[in-house]
Order: sequence, then C-alpha cells, then structure tokens
Amino acid sequence: MSGNSTGILFKVTTWGESHGPGLGAIVEGCPPLIPLSEEDIQKDLQRRKPGQIQSASSRKEEDRVEILSGVFEGRTTGTPIALIIHNKDADSSAYDRLKDIFRPGHGDLTYYKKYGIRDHRGGGRASGRETAARVAAGAIAKKVLAREHIEVLAYTLELGGIQARIISLEAASQNPLCCPDPLAAREMEEKLRETAEKGDSLGGIVEIIARGCPPGLGEPVFDKMDADLAKALMSIGSIKGVEIGAGFKSARMTGSECNDPITPDGFLTNHAGGILAGITNGDDLVIRVACKPISSIRMEQKTIDLSGNPLTLAIKGRHDAAVIPRIIPVCEAMVSLVLADHLLRQKAIAQ
Amino acid sequence: MSGNSTGILFKVTTWGESHGPGLGAIVEGCPPLIPLSEEDIQKDLQRRKPGQIQSASSRKEEDRVEILSGVFEGRTTGTPIALIIHNKDADSSAYDRLKDIFRPGHGDLTYYKKYGIRDHRGGGRASGRETAARVAAGAIAKKVLAREHIEVLAYTLELGGIQARIISLEAASQNPLCCPDPLAAREMEEKLRETAEKGDSLGGIVEIIARGCPPGLGEPVFDKMDADLAKALMSIGSIKGVEIGAGFKSARMTGSECNDPITPDGFLTNHAGGILAGITNGDDLVIRVACKPISSIRMEQKTIDLSGNPLTLAIKGRHDAAVIPRIIPVCEAMVSLVLADHLLRQKAIAQ
Amino acid sequence: MSGNSTGILFKVTTWGESHGPGLGAIVEGCPPLIPLSEEDIQKDLQRRKPGQIQSASSRKEEDRVEILSGVFEGRTTGTPIALIIHNKDADSSAYDRLKDIFRPGHGDLTYYKKYGIRDHRGGGRASGRETAARVAAGAIAKKVLAREHIEVLAYTLELGGIQARIISLEAASQNPLCCPDPLAAREMEEKLRETAEKGDSLGGIVEIIARGCPPGLGEPVFDKMDADLAKALMSIGSIKGVEIGAGFKSARMTGSECNDPITPDGFLTNHAGGILAGITNGDDLVIRVACKPISSIRMEQKTIDLSGNPLTLAIKGRHDAAVIPRIIPVCEAMVSLVLADHLLRQKAIAQ
Amino acid sequence: MSGNSTGILFKVTTWGESHGPGLGAIVEGCPPLIPLSEEDIQKDLQRRKPGQIQSASSRKEEDRVEILSGVFEGRTTGTPIALIIHNKDADSSAYDRLKDIFRPGHGDLTYYKKYGIRDHRGGGRASGRETAARVAAGAIAKKVLAREHIEVLAYTLELGGIQARIISLEAASQNPLCCPDPLAAREMEEKLRETAEKGDSLGGIVEIIARGCPPGLGEPVFDKMDADLAKALMSIGSIKGVEIGAGFKSARMTGSECNDPITPDGFLTNHAGGILAGITNGDDLVIRVACKPISSIRMEQKTIDLSGNPLTLAIKGRHDAAVIPRIIPVCEAMVSLVLADHLLRQKAIAQ
Repeated sequence: MSGNSTGILFKVTTWGESHGPGLGAIVEGCPPLIPLSEEDIQKDLQRRKPGQIQSASSRKEEDRVEILSGVFEGRTTGTPIALIIHNKDADSSAYDRLKDIFRPGHGDLTYYKKYGIRDHRGGGRASGRETAARVAAGAIAKKVLAREHIEVLAYTLELGGIQARIISLEAASQNPLCCPDPLAAREMEEKLRETAEKGDSLGGIVEIIARGCPPGLGEPVFDKMDADLAKALMSIGSIKGVEIGAGFKSARMTGSECNDPITPDGFLTNHAGGILAGITNGDDLVIRVACKPISSIRMEQKTIDLSGNPLTLAIKGRHDAAVIPRIIPVCEAMVSLVLADHLLRQKAIAQ
Repeated sequence: MSGNSTGILFKVTTWGESHGPGLGAIVEGCPPLIPLSEEDIQKDLQRRKPGQIQSASSRKEEDRVEILSGVFEGRTTGTPIALIIHNKDADSSAYDRLKDIFRPGHGDLTYYKKYGIRDHRGGGRASGRETAARVAAGAIAKKVLAREHIEVLAYTLELGGIQARIISLEAASQNPLCCPDPLAAREMEEKLRETAEKGDSLGGIVEIIARGCPPGLGEPVFDKMDADLAKALMSIGSIKGVEIGAGFKSARMTGSECNDPITPDGFLTNHAGGILAGITNGDDLVIRVACKPISSIRMEQKTIDLSGNPLTLAIKGRHDAAVIPRIIPVCEAMVSLVLADHLLRQKAIAQ
Repeated sequence: MSGNSTGILFKVTTWGESHGPGLGAIVEGCPPLIPLSEEDIQKDLQRRKPGQIQSASSRKEEDRVEILSGVFEGRTTGTPIALIIHNKDADSSAYDRLKDIFRPGHGDLTYYKKYGIRDHRGGGRASGRETAARVAAGAIAKKVLAREHIEVLAYTLELGGIQARIISLEAASQNPLCCPDPLAAREMEEKLRETAEKGDSLGGIVEIIARGCPPGLGEPVFDKMDADLAKALMSIGSIKGVEIGAGFKSARMTGSECNDPITPDGFLTNHAGGILAGITNGDDLVIRVACKPISSIRMEQKTIDLSGNPLTLAIKGRHDAAVIPRIIPVCEAMVSLVLADHLLRQKAIAQ
Repeated sequence: MSGNSTGILFKVTTWGESHGPGLGAIVEGCPPLIPLSEEDIQKDLQRRKPGQIQSASSRKEEDRVEILSGVFEGRTTGTPIALIIHNKDADSSAYDRLKDIFRPGHGDLTYYKKYGIRDHRGGGRASGRETAARVAAGAIAKKVLAREHIEVLAYTLELGGIQARIISLEAASQNPLCCPDPLAAREMEEKLRETAEKGDSLGGIVEIIARGCPPGLGEPVFDKMDADLAKALMSIGSIKGVEIGAGFKSARMTGSECNDPITPDGFLTNHAGGILAGITNGDDLVIRVACKPISSIRMEQKTIDLSGNPLTLAIKGRHDAAVIPRIIPVCEAMVSLVLADHLLRQKAIAQ
C-alpha cells in the first residue's frame, strides 16, 4: 500500500523513474476478449509528448509502449497486462549540479525527508514523466468504457488567466492547446510563448467530461464517484484543486438555484456534475481541475542545499512553460481508470 | 470494497441508516495503550448536533456514543474499536409521503438506479446522519495525532457569499458558526435566518488546517497526501470542490509567484498548502472545501415519482438551512483519519 | 489492515471480545434484494452453541443476533449489514486468577508480546467466541450462494483418532457430532466423555464440501480459490492444517494416479478437490482441516506468569473437550464467505 | 483484485506468461536504503532452474533478472522495484498440437471456462514459470528479513514416498534435492530417474522453517500469521496441503500432549510451529506443504478437446518428474514475503 496502485477491480500499478531504464504499468482486472494493440495506447501517448507548443523540452521523449503480457492474438486474456516504456534519453548528467539542491515547488525536499535518500536524476519517481504510465493504462480503460459507449474528453478551460468559452468540443481537437475556443487558444499560445521567454511558467484549468455514463456507478459513503475522481485527479503532480459540477460556485448558490430539477426527460440543469450522493445520475460527468504553473523555471529562486545552506537557483534547460496541454490526456486517463473500475464494481452486484 | 471503509492501516468502516436502529463505526489499526473514553468522542459529536443556529431540525438528535470493544481499563488494546450510536428518534413516518418521490439534489434517484430498491426513510444510507459515525471515528484519530502533537482545525471561511477574514482561530470557537471573523459571523447568522424563513438554503466554504504535521507523510503517485485528503473530503455528501494551498488561485499564478521559496528557516510562503509532490513538507496543511446548499428545502421544486410522472414537491419539516457549521467537525474528522493513516504508514518504513 | 476483514467484494469485518458488551460483524457487498431475516442467521448460530456433547461449558451462551442495518422490509438493500450479538454472560471474574498467567496453547503470551497489554478476560479478542460473528456473516453468504444453487456442508471425519466412513451426509445431520458414520459417531462421543472426565481434550478432522459450484471461480496466481480457502480456514483458531482434494496423499501419488482423467461427462476422479490451477473446475470442492485439541484443560501444565516466573496451572471450569462439533458451522461459514466473494469477483469480468 | 498481488505493506504484483516476451514483478513498500543488486536476486533464481536432476526440461531457462526501478547507486529508494526476466526461449510451436486440448491436471480447462479464451502456449499465465517472478521478489524480502536476523530455509522431507530424517540442515545444501538426509537423497534421486524413464512423475513434501522471528508478528482473526502463510503457500500451483507445527498430527493428540509447556527459558516443545493464536511466539516457524506430482507426463491419459470430444493424450517433451527441488526456493520466497509484510505491519503499531 505504498501508493503505486489505483482501482479495486480495474487496477493499475505503476513503476519507474524519470532517468532509470524505463517506466511501466501493470493493468489488472481488464475483462478478457477486448481487442487491444500497442497502437491503441500509442495514440494517447503522443498527445502527452512534450514540446507541442514552444519547441520545448530539450528532451525528445519518443515514448514507445510495449505490451509484455496479457494480450494473445490481439485480444486481452483476462490476465495482467504489463506495459513498458523505455527511457530513451536517460542521461541524467544535466541534473548533476542539482545533486545537493532542493528545487522549490518540487518533491526534492519531501522525498528526501520521507526516504532519507536523494535521487536527484530529474525528480526520480516524482517526475511528471511518471504520468506516461498512467496515460498508457488509461488507454486500456478507455477501451473498456468504449464497449459501453462511455467517452471521456478533456480540454483547456483557462490558461494564464485567459478564459475559454466552449465554442465546440470538436474545436478542441484542432489546436495544440486542446482549447474549445479557437480565439482564446491563440491568445493562450501567445502568452505561453512570452512567459517561456521570460523563463517563467503559467497555470490553468482543465475541464473533463464523461458522456454516456449509466446511472448507478459509484459506491456510498467513502468510495463515492466524486471522491474517487477527486483522488485520482489530485494525485496528478501539478493539480491543486478539483471541483464537480457547479463546484466552488455552488458555495454561493441557494438550494433552490443549485438543486437540479428532475423531469420525465431528465434533469433540467447539471449543477451536480452528473453525480448525486456519490452515484452517477445518468447525466454527463463534469469535473474541473486547477493546474499550478510548472515549478522548473529559469528565473532565480531562493532555496537551500542538503546541508541547509541558502542559495539562489536558476533552473537551466528548456522546460515546458505549462502542464497544459500535456496534462490533458493524463486527466482523461485518470477519469477513465476510475470509471472502468466502478463499472466493474457495479457489475458484481447487478442482477 | 463497497465503499464503507477508509484508510489502510488506521482503517474505519461505517454502517447504518438514518432511520434504522442506529449507526456505527469499526476503527481498526488504532495503536494499543492510548487512553480513550466515550467522553473523548462525545465532545466532537456535540459539535455535529443539528439546530445550532435556527432551532432547526425537528429531530432532536442526542447522539450518545457507546464503545463496544477494543478498549480495556480505559486504554486501547490494539483490537478493533466498535462504536455504536443508537437512533433515538427513528420514526420515519414523516417520510412516508416521500415514499415514491425522488427529492431533487438527493441520492433518492441514484440509489434506486444502483440497487433497484427504495429505502425512503430519510435518505437511508445516503443521509447526512451517516457522518456521525465519521465524527466518532475521527475523534479517535485525533487522539493518535495528539500523541505526535498534530492538531486539526476547521472553520467557516464563507457562507451565503459572505466572506470571513481570519481574525483569529480562537474567535472561531466562540461563535456558533465557527467563524474566525466575529463580525462576518453575525452577518452570516442573519442571512441564514432569512434564508431559512424563505424555505431556502445556503452553501459555503470551510477551511481546514493541520498544524504540527511532520514532513514525509503521504505516498508517491496515487496515494499522495493531497489525493487522499481530496477523496476523504469529497466523500462528504455536500462537498463539491476541494483545493489545497493556493488551489484554484494557483491556476492564475506564474511559477515565480507560486513556488514557495525555501530558506534555512523554512518556506517563505505556503502556496503549496504544506504538501509537495504529495508528501507533507513540514508546513501547515491548508485545505478548503466548497459546500453546496442543503438540498431539502421548503420551496417548490420539480421532480418525478418512481413511475416517472412529473410532480411538484415542497419538503416539509424544519431542516437546517446550511451544512455549516455542522459539517465542520466532519471535515476535521476526515482530515484526521487521513493523517492518522499516513502517520502509521510512514512508521512502517521508517528507520 | 489489522486483520479483521476478509473478502474483497463480499467483505466481512468483525469486532468484539469474549467478555465485552458483545461482538459483531459488518457484511459489505451483499447484493440487494436478497430476502434476509434474523432467523436465517440464528439457525447456524444454534449449531455453534457450546455444550452439545457433555453438558459442557459452564457458560450458557444464548447467542441472539440482531440485524442493525442493511435490511429493509425483509430484503437486503445493498448497504452494509451490521450484525450484533450481545454477550449475555460477560462476568469475567472467573478469569481474575489468570490475570498474570499465560495459558499454554493460548494467545495470552503472543497478544501480550504484540500489543504490550494483557486483556485477561477469557482470551479477549483471541477467544473462540469471536467465531460467532463469522458464523453470522457466513449465514448471509450462504443465502447469496443459494441463489446460484451452491451448497456448503461440513462434517466430522475423525475425532480422537476414530475415523468415520462417509455412510451418508444425511446421517451427519442426525447426530450431535455431525458425523456421516453413525457407529463411529457413538464411539467418538464415548471417547469425548472419557477424555473430558480426565480433564483432557481431543483433536480431529473436519471435511467441507461445496456442491454446485460453477467452473471459473478463483483468480490466477495469489488469489487462487484453494489459497483463499486455506487462508480462511487456517484463520480459525484451532486449525493447524488444510488440504484440498487428495491433499497430503497426493505427495505419495504418481502423476498418472493423481491427474483426474477428463471425459465428455466430466472428471473420472476428484483428486483435485474441484480446483485446477486455482480455479474451480465444476466438480465438488473437497477440503479437510486438522483441528488441534482444545488448549484449556484441567490437567496440570507448566507455564510462566507476566514476570517470567515458572508455575503450574490447572484450568478450572467446564470447557468443551473438543472444538468438534462446534467448529463445523464455523468451517462452513468461512468456505461460504470465500465462495460468495469469488462469485461476485467473477461476475465483474463476465461477459 | 484479480489476484496478482500479495502483501499489504510489503506488496508484490507479478505479471507475465510462459511464452510471452517475459515475466516480472513489482515490489512495493520495500524500505529505503537497503543494499540491493541483481546478483542478490540471481542466486535464488539459479536454485529454481529446471533440469537439476535428470537433464530435464528441453527448455534451457537462463533466467537473468533485471532491476528496472527503485534502486539507486546500489540501494533501494523506497519507490517500487520493478523486476523483469525476459523469456529467452519463447518458441511455443511445441504447444501447437495442444491448441485445442485440455491437459489433465492443468489449468487449461479452468482458464478457458473462466475467461472464454485459450492461451495454449505452455499454460500461459498458469505455467509454473510464473514462480520465477515470486522467487525474484522473495529474494528482496529476504534482504529485509536479514536486517532483523530472520532466516527462511526450505528442504525436502519426502519424495515419492521416501522419507528423510533431518540429519542436518547443512546437508540439505549439499545435494541437488535439498534433502537434509544424504542417504534418503540418493534413494530419491534414483526413484526420480526411474519414474522419469517411465514417463510418470512424483509428489513430495517440503518443510520450511523460519528462524529468528520475533514474537508479535501476525494479526488477530483473519490475517493470522498461519492463515497468511497457508494462503501464500497454497497459491503455488502444485501445492495441495499446508500444515503448521504438528499439523495433521495434532488431530490425533490430546490437549496435554499438544500444548507446548512454557518455561522461563522458552517453550519445551514446538507443536504450535511457532505460532499461537495467529501470532508468532518467538520460536522457529515450522510449515510443511504437500506437492502433487507434476501433471505433464508422457504416459497416455484420457481427456477432451475444446469441442468436448474424448481423446487420448501423451505429453511429449522432457519435463521434470517432480516439482521438488525446484519448488524449494519458491516456498522460501512465499514465506519470506509473508514475514516481511507482517514485520512492516507490526512496525506501524509498535511503540
């Protein structure tokens, strides 16, 4: 229970560090007889590639996934599906000068306090690179959901303070920022470039929706659907807030505004975000997450070294200036994993 | 794994419905030799009592907890601690007229879709009354935390749109709304009364802090401290959003603003809310939750019955007009349970 | 994870000590809409009553179970079913003289070493009385199994060295020792009385079969059906050995003798005990367990006290002279719990 | 929860099939700062190699383990340790003629019934080859145990009906059968050769002991030390029985014979096998397991094909004629995994 697994029936365990030989995931509980190829997974991995906006990260991650088990003649067998992504560019020498330094906003200090050991190679297990394993596993969850006509989509709602309107979800697939508002997308790109030039970074908001979700998914009390979604999303390194449906806005609504009226044709509004008392109500799930700005910036920052001495640090290298849009397939993956798990859990008790 | 348990090492399982004979919790993994009495638990249960603002709920819940096991001669034995709270006023006849009606904003419809059965007695397992068991269990977690000088406190930050400044946390214990701003507290009370008279309800924001938390708690990847806190809090019925530290504000910050500078004397700011890469950094934990307005309102609402026929519903009875302040000890309990669990998890690997 | 729960989907958590106010179980994951009454459970509790052979235990346990939650209008609701059995005769003064003494064969010493505290009241949590909660929970599992026409039966195969032949399983229900061999049953009773008079006790062997089990239950690798059965049965205090099908005899067989030939009409033999590679094969499950003699005997034994001083102990009171036949419903309960859990686990992945 | 994981705090998840690209394990919860190299693991893998007696299996398994994560500069980091063993000889064409046939004594039929798919390549996930991953993970558990001076040893007690006396445990490391009785070892080898020539196979009994185990390990009720050991060992494919201490012999003992007298210098006997009420008592743990004869034999057997037609099958190839001695490091691994897990679990509640 050291925190590398998620899910009960559809269960994923990940391993690997930023600069070791590779990283991977074991997907357990995937039903048998589902068609699955490496290409199914690769598509989402591509969307997670760095350097999609500025010619970003100096590191060219070409993340090729390999399926090592659990698939026979193109179909899942019901046994664990092991996935591996080899680290192509595992040269960690660039990190040597950070060996004794705790980077602000990173897990360097807390991992050291927890384990008494400093794996300085690019963040080690705490690196954002770990999310590649999540995306790979999530692609399998999406196949399970697709069988039941459930679809999970994420897009950029806000970046660097620039807000998008939802012009069309199709538009979101047509710009590199996955923004459903083409005009806002251009502004965001511009701001991202300016910020990157200054050596600073930006935060933003991503919205995730799930369509086609049947009512009845989620468990009472502690494993409510919204609780599991909140955990899954908050477990992504740069996410600092999660809200469902009306979310923080519901704190300023009255009951008569916030309750979604029920009619024979369904709910008139969706302030609930598709979840009532922790269980899906048949409406679209709507979730938003707040992404903090990337911690690795070229601007000078105060910090300390392993011995506690103060110093000033400017992080070299060409890092992305925002986790958006790379975080979008990660959000989709986490929501898909939760839904696939609850789908199987519900099947176990269904008539 | 039907969602009635929380925690791995310090583990709580709850049971019970609103109008059955009672409800309770089993607390497993509590270390032995900790002094524990029913009075230790009762204190927090009192804070959860209804009707603290308006002479609210017609139901006079006198929740007396009984310890049924796991304590011998005033100290914990290491074996499971069973707690029971008998339902004194289990008359559910008031709910008879709701028998075939799905109340908007409630779990009536989703439980029915999930289980194919309608327990109409006051919400059954979905009732907010279930949180009494959480508060009772949380009081035991607080005793485990107190041994390590960790303290968890929650207070009202906003109610019905009225925002409080944090004048002093001591002030929060001196008004019924647990508001750290006495002036705002009076305004909130006033607005709550007005709203109750109209038969409507209000939402709000609660902030929870944990002081004295050592660095190193929380697990990498999926069981990050913030992920577990988000799940624990989002599992409370009326919570629709959770944020850590700067939370949603961090989405509009730049990296140079958001990163907390590190000095030999600690962090200069706490935008991280005490958590870096999912692990506590030694600073105070700071979490905020958005509470939606109470769903049971006297105002008329559109809904349907079991057969799908439309109707108009006005819910009788004297319900609270906000989950604040009753939700405050529930938030403290959930945060305490998460911290106690991670404290034990960290002990298992410590040198 | 302090060991008070069993099962993943059909999950049982027990609590309670021998001489506290009571003991109980929470049954989670029971599908909704199953008819369930206290009487359904009470039947099995009666079979676990002490004093069925000699006028045994001075303690007259009248174990009345109460259902506290999870059942509405005679049917399960899908929410946790809490069961309580009050301890009627919780006077522990008889144990006062054992306060500082470790009884041989009991958990007194090991619990003290584990927890640093001595709950001397009749064994506390380690008391065989804890199995009442298992039997109660098992009765609910039996109802889940009955829906699928699966039946679990246990009987006495050997007691004090006297071996029974399986004349008829019906015979087993007609003598107090649950022995399928009426003649052997009489011999066993006689030997039990003699042994009790000497102040000594006897061991024996119980066989459990499950009929009607569909093929495909059990998981590969670590949660094999036989692995879970072995754990469930070995977790009963007095069981020191578990074997499946040919069991220890298979160690002396050749492959050509041991492999069960497969024909279009099924297997020709059942040395596998109904399980191949950890998964049920459609044949009857056959399991045998070795029960050690009861540890509480009137004969003098060497032991030590809390301070490590040697002494001689003769345990007073009228204890049963064998765990058979009381252990029989406990064995049935444990096997039923495992089967119900795997039945639900299989439903989750089934087409 | 599809059964590919074992352990709560020291947790192992395995993946892989007999004839896929490889197999592996993820070891989670290993404390940081433990020196670990591939060589530490390789030693035990060598002991699991086939063909140690007759020049057995046609397949030359050269199982080289690779550590893919969780170790930095020769020491564990606290993060998951991923292990991979590539399948060198993954040519499964030899199995093509078995494509539609269920081999007696194998999981072919039950896997097909469970998953609706037939992976005929050498047993797929059900292959004994899967135990290589257990042995690799167990080697890491042994390092955790060694820090606390706990040692786990297994040896052959009986093979093909030939019983060994325990002359010396050192002797066991000096013959290929790991038999503590050199004379019996020679007889066993002879019998094994004869049986192999006939195309048949043999069963046997392995005894495992753990020395240096502190008192207090194991949890009450369901996760008793003996329960977890029984599950871990019974989860090995060919094991059909497990007993602790006096085991099945205790069924024929009286209480006065079976209870281990306690003295100021320890227990006078060890019928308990080092476990009382599920918790270690400080004495050596003693466990025995019954291994069935290997199912793959050259002699003709009755079986059916996928369509249910009867046929006669003689399995070609040079298979081992007994799982002994190859199963010995597997037994050690499983016991080591259970002990390492309970060691960490106990640390979590210790003062």
